Amino acid sequence: MTQPSRRDLANAIRFLAVDAVQKANSGHPGMPMGMADIAEVLWNDFLRHNPANPKWFNRDRFILSNGHGSMLQYACLHLSGYALPMEQLKNFRQLHSMTPGHPECKDTPGVETTTGPLGQGFANAVGFALAEKLLAKQFNRPEFDIVDHMTWVFMGDGCMMEGISHEAASLAGTLALGKLIAFWDNNHISIDGHTQGWFTDDTPARFEAYGWHVIRDVDGLDAASVREAILHAQNETQKPTLICCRTIIGFGAPDKQDSAAAHGSPLGADEIAKARANLHWPYGPFEIPPEIYDGWRAVNTGRVREDAWNELFDRYAKQYPELAAELVRRSHGELPEDFAAAADAYIAKTQLAGPEVASRKASQMALDAYGPHLPELIGGSADLAESNLTMWKGSVNVCDPNAVGNYIHYGVREFGMTAVSTGLALHGGFLPYDATFLVFSDYARNGVRMSALNPAHSIHVYTHDSIGLGEDGPTHQPVEHAASLRHIPNLDVWRPCDAVESAVAWKHAIEHRQGPSALIFTRQKLAHQQRTSQQLADIARGGYVLTDPGEAQFDVILIATGSEVELARQSAIALAGKGVKARVVSMPCTEAFDRQPLEWREGVLPGWCRKRVAIEAGVSDYWRKYVGLDGAVIGIDTFGASAPAEVLFPYFGFTVDKIVEAALGLR
Amino acid sequence: MTQPSRRDLANAIRFLAVDAVQKANSGHPGMPMGMADIAEVLWNDFLRHNPANPKWFNRDRFILSNGHGSMLQYACLHLSGYALPMEQLKNFRQLHSMTPGHPECKDTPGVETTTGPLGQGFANAVGFALAEKLLAKQFNRPEFDIVDHMTWVFMGDGCMMEGISHEAASLAGTLALGKLIAFWDNNHISIDGHTQGWFTDDTPARFEAYGWHVIRDVDGLDAASVREAILHAQNETQKPTLICCRTIIGFGAPDKQDSAAAHGSPLGADEIAKARANLHWPYGPFEIPPEIYDGWRAVNTGRVREDAWNELFDRYAKQYPELAAELVRRSHGELPEDFAAAADAYIAKTQLAGPEVASRKASQMALDAYGPHLPELIGGSADLAESNLTMWKGSVNVCDPNAVGNYIHYGVREFGMTAVSTGLALHGGFLPYDATFLVFSDYARNGVRMSALNPAHSIHVYTHDSIGLGEDGPTHQPVEHAASLRHIPNLDVWRPCDAVESAVAWKHAIEHRQGPSALIFTRQKLAHQQRTSQQLADIARGGYVLTDPGEAQFDVILIATGSEVELARQSAIALAGKGVKARVVSMPCTEAFDRQPLEWREGVLPGWCRKRVAIEAGVSDYWRKYVGLDGAVIGIDTFGASAPAEVLFPYFGFTVDKIVEAALGLR
Repeated sequence: MTQPSRRDLANAIRFLAVDAVQKANSGHPGMPMGMADIAEVLWNDFLRHNPANPKWFNRDRFILSNGHGSMLQYACLHLSGYALPMEQLKNFRQLHSMTPGHPECKDTPGVETTTGPLGQGFANAVGFALAEKLLAKQFNRPEFDIVDHMTWVFMGDGCMMEGISHEAASLAGTLALGKLIAFWDNNHISIDGHTQGWFTDDTPARFEAYGWHVIRDVDGLDAASVREAILHAQNETQKPTLICCRTIIGFGAPDKQDSAAAHGSPLGADEIAKARANLHWPYGPFEIPPEIYDGWRAVNTGRVREDAWNELFDRYAKQYPELAAELVRRSHGELPEDFAAAADAYIAKTQLAGPEVASRKASQMALDAYGPHLPELIGGSADLAESNLTMWKGSVNVCDPNAVGNYIHYGVREFGMTAVSTGLALHGGFLPYDATFLVFSDYARNGVRMSALNPAHSIHVYTHDSIGLGEDGPTHQPVEHAASLRHIPNLDVWRPCDAVESAVAWKHAIEHRQGPSALIFTRQKLAHQQRTSQQLADIARGGYVLTDPGEAQFDVILIATGSEVELARQSAIALAGKGVKARVVSMPCTEAFDRQPLEWREGVLPGWCRKRVAIEAGVSDYWRKYVGLDGAVIGIDTFGASAPAEVLFPYFGFTVDKIVEAALGLR
Repeated sequence: MTQPSRRDLANAIRFLAVDAVQKANSGHPGMPMGMADIAEVLWNDFLRHNPANPKWFNRDRFILSNGHGSMLQYACLHLSGYALPMEQLKNFRQLHSMTPGHPECKDTPGVETTTGPLGQGFANAVGFALAEKLLAKQFNRPEFDIVDHMTWVFMGDGCMMEGISHEAASLAGTLALGKLIAFWDNNHISIDGHTQGWFTDDTPARFEAYGWHVIRDVDGLDAASVREAILHAQNETQKPTLICCRTIIGFGAPDKQDSAAAHGSPLGADEIAKARANLHWPYGPFEIPPEIYDGWRAVNTGRVREDAWNELFDRYAKQYPELAAELVRRSHGELPEDFAAAADAYIAKTQLAGPEVASRKASQMALDAYGPHLPELIGGSADLAESNLTMWKGSVNVCDPNAVGNYIHYGVREFGMTAVSTGLALHGGFLPYDATFLVFSDYARNGVRMSALNPAHSIHVYTHDSIGLGEDGPTHQPVEHAASLRHIPNLDVWRPCDAVESAVAWKHAIEHRQGPSALIFTRQKLAHQQRTSQQLADIARGGYVLTDPGEAQFDVILIATGSEVELARQSAIALAGKGVKARVVSMPCTEAFDRQPLEWREGVLPGWCRKRVAIEAGVSDYWRKYVGLDGAVIGIDTFGASAPAEVLFPYFGFTVDKIVEAALGLR
């Protein structure tokens, strides 16, 4: 081989995928074999990236929404020169390898977002493209297109069938994301077989209905056709483009291609041998000849590209030093230096003022206080701005043609919103928050999980957090949601009891870069709690003593969150009247509390005191982790009911009398 | 008023809604005011129902997917003669009223399904229409269209924005549900305001892309136009129809109509007075003149309709006695008389044979055993038939033109599938199961919740239940899912440890008519457990003693589920070698166990023994409810990893050594 053909270059993807899957005895060869030619053209002719610096800020973003085809991405990364050595490809799907079964951005250089759960990579890509568009608007200046990159996304039939594809595509059309280009791997095969029995949409017409630019009937196995389509797509700058690529799953494997057999299992040695002959690929497993590497290497062009950008950026920095510094700060995810002090001052002021408001209102007050310090803050709600109170004084619609926006009207699209939020966070330059009613966090649940798994530094705001929502009834009353969110690893869940804890929760969520936070707020007004300055500082620990019965040792501990903290405090007073000394613990964030040193946890919940009552307007089982078998839980283990909140709380047993009775009943 | 106009009849809906919302000081007047004319035409000219018998099997089904407009439905039910007295309308949104904030089918005669969470009523409707189509195919005979009704559904802009609308509409198109007619309340207003900023889809084109018959630009405030559109829709029998109705939210309220202000709050006394003048409605709150009632009453026509059908059915029963008896049985949700005995025989046989298979395989074996006895069983999977093993020997595709099908290829549409399943169950005549990977139960989560809230007798099959899934990695490995599902009220969650418990779980789910069940199965092989016949019977209790250390009193209890039960058994043996006597409790269904009398629970987990270790490959917090503060939990509180299952279990601490260590560490 002297001068490899484009097909030869593409075949390198095919056989790295086939051989890695065969060696792992697990994985998905079909998609890489089908999309190899598309990937080859995109990566070698269009993708602007620098393998030596996967974090170059102005790189194009490439996202594999059909993440089961991970070996395609690993092959491209390896061949083009990323720090992903062949050894790692041989280690595909093994513990601690850089090549997990689905792409994970924390494991592999060049992987922008963790994908696999179908449709979500596509929605992430909408977030990436929106981030680019907004940053460009804010930071670019004449002759300085500092932020100027494409977002490319591969998606399969599965992504297309998922509901989130509707939400994300609709948003992308409305937001006119002209630098988003999606490739649909239209191969007519999903796991159950030929899709004619369950997927009969006219997908191009559907995307046109969303305001997309659609390029139909592209031969995805022909490099020239793919190249032409991409050029055509890039000419359209006002609309996102869908390139509909006809491909053949498992292309090249003579007996398995064009069937579900090629999708998710190793091809087997015989079929692989036949594919090698069929595609004229004489090399052994994991053998890539130098000519092929030469055709793929992007290290030099990548360096040249980034150097040119660096040079541009240097000139930009001279002309616009403040803008440049701000972009650097934001791209590194660093908060403004004055944020922490400003937040602490606001928290202290709130403790002093003691406003008695719904915590959703307290949330908006915190946004008003913190927002002016945080130009990276970008928010939105799933059509509940007036209910979630997610618009603050500085909110500007991202669609405003005359201003740099920071507020997204997501429409009634909870799942799409959450995945877009993850994309905004992973792109860099933004700290996104999204919002809906707590009960509808369900609609977004795997998106929340993916924000935690990536992880993405995003903030999920969930209001109307219990039966306190009242008349809308059980369809809208979360019962199991707070506990269920707490079960998601790497997600901090805050349920604050007053305006002060709400402000602390927001501060924590803003500063907690290791992952997302969920902030759970009430619809109804909450009492204000008194605190010393030490207690004020202790809120951040997630659980702390709110009141103790004077100097005397206590008999019982009441643990509560959110709207039930005031009830606990009143119950402690009532218990005192009966000669029982009760400590009240406010526990706004169990994850933060569980991370505290043992001394702190033991100080708040000493092991000698087993008389404990937990109080939360949600399912009770979760609280056994703190009250054990000897304690009691005042919770709700059924669905709620439609009635005014003030009727529902006593109806479901949230009264001083019931709590006192429970405390007195402990032995 | 002598002869009320159609507008007058519609205004009865408007003012019942307005006045009920005003009296409750809570609710949504905008939608009923906007859709009143559509509802009036549909109910008075087309809807075939019998107010005196809301359970008449061949009634048309009417579903309010935009359930916040509940007062529209309550008004129609009241006016047409259902047992929903005016007193109940005055009691709108009050505790224990028949008129909760959103329609709940357990509370109100004539409400077919509980709605409110947007888009789901629409997906339920697809299930209703599919049920009708399949029952008609199976039971109708020449001149005997015993099953022959329409499914009508109202939906708003919010339903249209939700991803589930894509999944459900796409399925309805593919399934050619010609007797499904949807009315889109196209009023351009959602909670955030005019939808032009976030909802710019060409919705008619989108639905045409799904293969729907779309009737565009109908004046939804003009009775004649609506009537013409419905006639047109009914002429199309091969495709579902979307009637796009231009309406004005809050129509008739002069200062609030056509704005979000009319959506979700009482109009206020002044605006209501103006609306009364504007719409020429001189009557007081909750005052309906007899002429209006006369125009609405459907009691006589309903009785005539049902009488005619009963007469037809009697003749049918004479000609086809077995078919008629079978339809009656199925419509009542009664199981075949031979089912329980056949299931018990299969369970006993399985105990004897002791197959060591993956529980997903055991699930398929149970389907093969039970399926032939259950013609009402209808199943499907979200494009994972080969993985979930949801096809059994008797499975026939519902799209098969030459047979009566019982298997639905749902495509990659978990949420839509689950809500369709609820519709199938609520229609009557079917016992549906749906399936996906456990981790993707997230995509359907609010649909699962709604199946429990309705409740619907449906079965959710979730395979690949832990890190045992292996190489696909953390995106596909459930960790928090079993615990989170257990938090949903009225949902039984089974995680069986072998083929026997799997068979019992299926039997329980089939017999448990009070609500849905989730069956959680492994990808990997499981050991078989020995049991006495008493133990075999005790599985149904949800938790039982699997092994005890001979006659001696035990020192420690090991509680496990699913794939971890065998590990617990081996650990007990290892502990015996160290002189520690361990009881092993298998706990396949905590909900069933928690429902047992105290004696049973105390017999299995006696209070005197606080040395308890719970073992489950999922989040640990849940298990504190059984092991308390003194016990230990072997669980996983992080995301999983991509590697072979046999590597992952020891890596995450699921070994005999670790369990022994935990047990010995208890004090």
